[in-house]
Amino acid sequence: MRYSRPMRVRFGHADPAKIVYYPRFFEWFHDAMESMFEDVSGRPYAEVLEGTRAGFPAVSLACEFKSPARFGELVDVEVFLSRLGERSGTFEYRVRRRGELLATATVKVSVIDLDTMRSRAWPPDLRRQFEPYVEADGEAPDATRLRS
Amino acid sequence: MRYSRPMRVRFGHADPAKIVYYPRFFEWFHDAMESMFEDVSGRPYAEVLEGTRAGFPAVSLACEFKSPARFGELVDVEVFLSRLGERSGTFEYRVRRRGELLATATVKVSVIDLDTMRSRAWPPDLRRQFEPYVEADGEAPDATRLRS
Amino acid sequence: MRYSRPMRVRFGHADPAKIVYYPRFFEWFHDAMESMFEDVSGRPYAEVLEGTRAGFPAVSLACEFKSPARFGELVDVEVFLSRLGERSGTFEYRVRRRGELLATATVKVSVIDLDTMRSRAWPPDLRRQFEPYVEADGEAPDATRLRS
Amino acid sequence: MRYSRPMRVRFGHADPAKIVYYPRFFEWFHDAMESMFEDVSGRPYAEVLEGTRAGFPAVSLACEFKSPARFGELVDVEVFLSRLGERSGTFEYRVRRRGELLATATVKVSVIDLDTMRSRAWPPDLRRQFEPYVEADGEAPDATRLRS
Repeated sequence: MRYSRPMRVRFGHADPAKIVYYPRFFEWFHDAMESMFEDVSGRPYAEVLEGTRAGFPAVSLACEFKSPARFGELVDVEVFLSRLGERSGTFEYRVRRRGELLATATVKVSVIDLDTMRSRAWPPDLRRQFEPYVEADGEAPDATRLRS
Repeated sequence: MRYSRPMRVRFGHADPAKIVYYPRFFEWFHDAMESMFEDVSGRPYAEVLEGTRAGFPAVSLACEFKSPARFGELVDVEVFLSRLGERSGTFEYRVRRRGELLATATVKVSVIDLDTMRSRAWPPDLRRQFEPYVEADGEAPDATRLRS
Repeated sequence: MRYSRPMRVRFGHADPAKIVYYPRFFEWFHDAMESMFEDVSGRPYAEVLEGTRAGFPAVSLACEFKSPARFGELVDVEVFLSRLGERSGTFEYRVRRRGELLATATVKVSVIDLDTMRSRAWPPDLRRQFEPYVEADGEAPDATRLRS
Repeated sequence: MRYSRPMRVRFGHADPAKIVYYPRFFEWFHDAMESMFEDVSGRPYAEVLEGTRAGFPAVSLACEFKSPARFGELVDVEVFLSRLGERSGTFEYRVRRRGELLATATVKVSVIDLDTMRSRAWPPDLRRQFEPYVEADGEAPDATRLRS
């Protein structure tokens, strides 16, 4: 199971080459993750944070840009998890334009206590709600390409 | 040799947890790369692009966030290259606060022709100017941590 | 007639005080204007620009922030025009939370030829499509408050 | 007296028309205000906020864009105040390229107590430090142009 949201590439996302300025992809990923939290838990991301006092900072990530996304295009941002640890989660993002994979990313987040800023376990309800979204695919970023 | 620039964490970089919203790091990296181009070539990045008709889109990256950067802190963003290929370059970024490593990233860029958007070789002068900045260190993001 | 779109205040929109960092409002306004163009003309904003070679840069604006929008809140961004000139348009934006006016803005755009960057008349079809959205209300920003 | 800082227009500031996407100007203004606070008070903006528990949210603003700033250009952002009220301040911003005025803005901020979020007086030391920066010039945005 994957969470997916369509989005239009906006004027403010694009750079002088008319393609998406790559830091904007990470804003899309964060927004899509927040939408997924809301869809999965039935509560806005901000309420999840406030209600559980858990936070989900990114600790490690990899991303490959395979083909540029252009100003005005309609893309789909898919979100799922490749791993649901005790105190972490590994979110996967796939950006497609009519099926074609434009960008693929893996973002590992740590579960922390927002009051102490220390590592903690997932809120149990939330962890259970995310379980159906755990899957493996063959499209994750390939670390060996980065070093070649 | 490394290019380094100090910067203050601004109000607009920080999120409700008062730490840097992670997509902002990639804006810092891009800005630092542009500054480095200017420092190394003696011409602003925009003029390098205009003069050579070469562009440098990110194609693959990895990043680790080891400790949060907080609103108001003074950090140093270091830039160098771990590899200078024929048609690509692998930029390394290290963000430190008084020496402590907060974030480490590797961003591989492709050299493209801005008119055809196809792969091309580095402009020779520019490649020569970057050569002194190629080095290896032990602080690059560790891909195995992402998958554990 | 007004164009309206709901949106969730995202983590990346909010600042360390947990309210929207004010420059983000202008990104919302631009995105809402792009959505309105698509809704009104039946074509994405990028296609309107490409098809007509007209552009719509902001030339003058005023904005009042009456009450903060907070991370996680659901707001509505309304767009309409207070004036449709021969070579300009005056867009009005109202941001509400369950009816309450949080921010109000007026953004005058010039119609320009994207090839020459000079002033030109509205593409006639587009001007006609915007006509139903011209209205006056009593909520525009009050310039006298800025100087008191 | 004016506070002034030079800055290079970055790739990420520019849009597909190769000119600055207008919401970025407000990020520049906020950054320049933060730099000015540091220059004037001798303490980073974040420390001023933490030390005095005062905050400075924008409540009303006006801005005129007279000529576009382009990717790669070097501009100066000037900051001063046109008014220093008991519980507010009116900051003025002028963006120039080799003397030519590209953008002019007035941003009124309210002084608030960060704990109660209510209006309060300026911290006295800070108010005294800002006094030399109060001046009037003839370049403020012209509200009548917005409505014509």
